[in-house]
Amino acid sequence: MEVNVVENVLKLNDEIAAMNRRRFQEAGVTVVNLIGSPGCGKTELLVQTFSQFHGRFGVIAGDLATTRDADRLIRAAHSANAVVQVNTGRGCHLDANQVRHAIDEIDLASLDVLVIENVGNLICPVGFDLGQDSVVGMFSLADGDDKPAKHPHLVHAADLLILNKVDLAPHVTFDKQLFYRDVGRLNDSAVVVETSASMGKIEPWLRWINCD
Amino acid sequence: MEVNVVENVLKLNDEIAAMNRRRFQEAGVTVVNLIGSPGCGKTELLVQTFSQFHGRFGVIAGDLATTRDADRLIRAAHSANAVVQVNTGRGCHLDANQVRHAIDEIDLASLDVLVIENVGNLICPVGFDLGQDSVVGMFSLADGDDKPAKHPHLVHAADLLILNKVDLAPHVTFDKQLFYRDVGRLNDSAVVVETSASMGKIEPWLRWINCD
Repeated sequence: MEVNVVENVLKLNDEIAAMNRRRFQEAGVTVVNLIGSPGCGKTELLVQTFSQFHGRFGVIAGDLATTRDADRLIRAAHSANAVVQVNTGRGCHLDANQVRHAIDEIDLASLDVLVIENVGNLICPVGFDLGQDSVVGMFSLADGDDKPAKHPHLVHAADLLILNKVDLAPHVTFDKQLFYRDVGRLNDSAVVVETSASMGKIEPWLRWINCD
Repeated sequence: MEVNVVENVLKLNDEIAAMNRRRFQEAGVTVVNLIGSPGCGKTELLVQTFSQFHGRFGVIAGDLATTRDADRLIRAAHSANAVVQVNTGRGCHLDANQVRHAIDEIDLASLDVLVIENVGNLICPVGFDLGQDSVVGMFSLADGDDKPAKHPHLVHAADLLILNKVDLAPHVTFDKQLFYRDVGRLNDSAVVVETSASMGKIEPWLRWINCD
């Protein structure tokens, strides 16, 4: 019975994700589902994107609790209209229905790119389609070189992988060869870029969303 | 129906956790459920504990994939008998039944302290009792000062909170007052200690497991 319930939940999620995807396409907005560990720098990347991206940009930010991400993002966006916070309570991922309600609060047609910043978690968000065009997985250099190998499903699902906080390289132990080898073994078509969001160095990410 | 299934899963988990707890008590071993984000330094803390703790120590290490943590821990322990790796596949947390099988592979009576290193995830592991004596929540200074506020359920459940990677303080932005204020607001009885596992500085943690 448990398996059937899980299958039904995922089937319903996929149906709503397909509806979201149609709405995104009709509005002409490119949508990214950004999945990364807690503290890998997702919000800082998006704060910097508001400053540096030349297109029209919006964010849906998922977290268990607090509006701290939305508060930071609204300050960067100089507008509350481009940012929606979703609080999931005990929920470990965003689902398509939460996104469906969130996009009711955004004028999709006014955006070129919308990033859905998922709940900080490398595992559960991977299983839930939100209607996005691309999945972006994000790691922090401070979290160690073994994260791709330990999270194969995320690496496998990702169109782009971001290695953030590369400015910390002189201060932590991190084997880049191992990191890239593990990524290549799991997904040889994903693009990998390095950023240092807290230093404002996000050019490869901006190039990717411009071309995607 | 979905709610009933979830309730049944949790009820069964609690029953098995109670069995585990009785086995731990009969063996006279103190058991810690260690919950932290991916890359916060859980395994490095335990590697250092094998070197520095004067009692008899063992680890059950949970991960989606790979035996890298167990390999590191066995090297530190100079013995494969004190370390068991559990691979959860897509599973986002350890449950009591996985721990029940893992402890069949350890001579519990030969240990003073057993740490169950949960899957790197600040959310899902909080809901599953494993039969432990204490819950320890672990954060990395590199992951930012907002993590307690964003993960209130973990902070609320924790007996001890570890702030690791404090050696990175000169290189990252982290408001310690905010961190401590949020922790105090959510759980005013939890002990908080600071460590730098990669530098071998784990004395406050060792004092805590000695006294716990």
